[in-house]
Amino acid sequence: MGTLRIATVGLDLMAEALHAQDADVTAIDWRPPAGGDPEVVRALTATYGDPRVGDANARALARLQEARPMIVGAGAAGELIPGLEGRMVLHAGPPVEWERMCAPQRNAVTGACILEGWASGPAEAADLVARGGVRLAPAHSLEAAGAMCGVISPSMACWAARDEIGGGVGYSPFNDGPGDAFWLGVGSPEAIRRQRLMADEVAPGFAAALRADGPIDALALCAQGIAMGDDCHMRHQATTMLLLRQVLPAIAEHAPEAVLPTARLLGGNGHFALTVTIAAARAALAGIQGIPASSLVVFISRNGTDAAVQIAGLPDRWFTFPAPLVGDPLYRPGFSDDDAAPDIGDSALVECAGLGGAASAASPGVAAFLGGGLQDAIERTRRMGDICVGRSERLRIPTLDGEGTPLGVDARACVDLGETPLINTGILHREDGGQIGAGIAVTPVEPIRDALRALAAHLEDGSR
Amino acid sequence: MGTLRIATVGLDLMAEALHAQDADVTAIDWRPPAGGDPEVVRALTATYGDPRVGDANARALARLQEARPMIVGAGAAGELIPGLEGRMVLHAGPPVEWERMCAPQRNAVTGACILEGWASGPAEAADLVARGGVRLAPAHSLEAAGAMCGVISPSMACWAARDEIGGGVGYSPFNDGPGDAFWLGVGSPEAIRRQRLMADEVAPGFAAALRADGPIDALALCAQGIAMGDDCHMRHQATTMLLLRQVLPAIAEHAPEAVLPTARLLGGNGHFALTVTIAAARAALAGIQGIPASSLVVFISRNGTDAAVQIAGLPDRWFTFPAPLVGDPLYRPGFSDDDAAPDIGDSALVECAGLGGAASAASPGVAAFLGGGLQDAIERTRRMGDICVGRSERLRIPTLDGEGTPLGVDARACVDLGETPLINTGILHREDGGQIGAGIAVTPVEPIRDALRALAAHLEDGSR
Repeated sequence: MGTLRIATVGLDLMAEALHAQDADVTAIDWRPPAGGDPEVVRALTATYGDPRVGDANARALARLQEARPMIVGAGAAGELIPGLEGRMVLHAGPPVEWERMCAPQRNAVTGACILEGWASGPAEAADLVARGGVRLAPAHSLEAAGAMCGVISPSMACWAARDEIGGGVGYSPFNDGPGDAFWLGVGSPEAIRRQRLMADEVAPGFAAALRADGPIDALALCAQGIAMGDDCHMRHQATTMLLLRQVLPAIAEHAPEAVLPTARLLGGNGHFALTVTIAAARAALAGIQGIPASSLVVFISRNGTDAAVQIAGLPDRWFTFPAPLVGDPLYRPGFSDDDAAPDIGDSALVECAGLGGAASAASPGVAAFLGGGLQDAIERTRRMGDICVGRSERLRIPTLDGEGTPLGVDARACVDLGETPLINTGILHREDGGQIGAGIAVTPVEPIRDALRALAAHLEDGSR
Repeated sequence: MGTLRIATVGLDLMAEALHAQDADVTAIDWRPPAGGDPEVVRALTATYGDPRVGDANARALARLQEARPMIVGAGAAGELIPGLEGRMVLHAGPPVEWERMCAPQRNAVTGACILEGWASGPAEAADLVARGGVRLAPAHSLEAAGAMCGVISPSMACWAARDEIGGGVGYSPFNDGPGDAFWLGVGSPEAIRRQRLMADEVAPGFAAALRADGPIDALALCAQGIAMGDDCHMRHQATTMLLLRQVLPAIAEHAPEAVLPTARLLGGNGHFALTVTIAAARAALAGIQGIPASSLVVFISRNGTDAAVQIAGLPDRWFTFPAPLVGDPLYRPGFSDDDAAPDIGDSALVECAGLGGAASAASPGVAAFLGGGLQDAIERTRRMGDICVGRSERLRIPTLDGEGTPLGVDARACVDLGETPLINTGILHREDGGQIGAGIAVTPVEPIRDALRALAAHLEDGSR
């Protein structure tokens, strides 16, 4: 009582000097927003000061809370995805020319060309693509999204998701598992064989189950998976088994020949449900695309060359920046940063839907894999909470006594705090493809800053 | 500095008086061991003072750590369990005469008599048993153990487990799920139908999978299940799916007709793996039975009338006490303590094997179901740690950053501290059977105290 208590704001030297004198000091970690860049501060002031932005974000959050994206189809991508026609291959990330495409993604593209019968080998396929004989387009341009390399060609097995509430759709290819796999940047004969197996023997079972039992509530599976240690990005062990348990009776009844290949495939691939989640999360997020004035981040997307974001108020506009290396990397023995391709994949959209990094605290298993403990995982969820406008009412974290995962990434908060979504992700070899590690990718703040400035300019135009 | 700091030991009034004077008091919660009962204090002194006990417990713990109980068989109990012959029904808990048997267990026994064709209805069955026409015996008497009512008759589907390391075996009936089920004290036509389905259509698939792929490492499934939110007593959601995922390819290949009934059964019963765990845990624990001088609790067993324990140093001797009601009860609407049967089931042996209450911290889901949070769950694991001699090297708790579950319940510590294993368990209706709630049963300390006194007397005899 009567003691002087001091708070210092942003002046660490002062705090240290007072500490040295044994004074009772609370140092508040304050930094000027956006590093003090005046143009960015103007964009922040404009968007925080404009009630249309807050209202739009509240509407967007409500729509994300209400979204019930359902898996409505399983089958050949060319039959499910409108516009995927002829010699066309989709890829993860923003648009990228063949010449700038990273090697793992090229490997997957040439693998897809061989799968489709457009070329007989990798060299012929590469030549065909380089000559413009195959159309390349971002998966998102056809409302699809893929994990890691995210390559989709017409005959590949694919999920279709639809959210009746927000009207969004999402497509994502079946996940082809560990080792030789397109998503990991390997286009080998084994990877091609696995694609054929999924298209010919596994997808028909899921299609039969969907016909018999109706759509699958994918986020309900995620909610249960999160209650069982999944983050639903880097870990899908429980969600994959929940999916299997749910569809197995219908597959056994209506497509019994699909049981054995499905059982073997899912038994060997704990990531299988990842792209079910991606398709569903994309459908949910697409429902907020185009809400005028909203500063919520809709998609985060990388192709190993560029990283990019879209925000709800500026639909279909990519804001890009060079893709970073994945942070906090844990490499397989013999690999290092020198071998790593930069961050890749459309999957980071799940972080905008309350999953992945947002759900870190639910998954001590992922934290341990990354070399940390539960407190690190809780801290990652807390940091996501700092840049989100709400908490999921549906995705609840058992280790936080049922607290919802952070939901609705606000570009304003990202730019203000210099904090961006943390993405639990894998690392590919920069040349050969194949997974060589895993870590936490930090979304670069620059494309989010650019998007926010564009939104501020757009609002100003609209006000005039 | 220079301030008087006071510790008070066991004298709460003194601590309160000092607190009232603003003194800095640390109150140590000390109580005389065993409530100060001189005979029990003698038993404690004798067993703590005898190096044979500590050595034996260390050997028992090492054997529990090394145990690898494997599921080696699935099929009719009468074919798997030596000695289960003729008109014989096994039941959970220590020996109990028909007249003293609780109503739910009677319901299951009469259901089994009808299943076996020994009677055409419940009244006829009850009359038959009352006249001595059916032999009743504790499951443990034939190295079996059952959840809740734990009734086993010859044609019921059953698991066989064997631990090659310690030489123990364990049998447990297939779990018959929610609603009308023998284990829940319902012997209705629907419960009987489900038993037939399991014996005729489901068990053969598992038997085929075991023939094709060899034994199943049940504790490996538990270890993964605990990493996914199971406590492996009250919650087996993940472990059940892990079991399904593991055996499904072999069932699909070698017994395809079993896929559909198995998928339906397991899809509707998240507890299915419970009795896989019980059979395996029994086999592991049986490996320490008969280690001379060991004070570790081997089995905790209740039949709704009596609760009983066995300790390793006095094999096959039951120490009994009236079964208590389940504590911290959460009842379904309309039910109360007045409707509850006392604590029942052999399943509490899993608490002696590092599962169930010992694994509480792994299962925030169970904690939430019981109306608490993660901290309550962690506290329950901590309390089990107080009475255990070690930590499992195999069963690791993600929310405690991989700490092992408490393993090796020491009767000495239970008696010394007045703390006994906490058992996550269900509650049956006292007349009709059927599950009306769940809660945490506290093992009565009295039979553990009696066992410890008998051990002390036995050691004294051996020393003379």
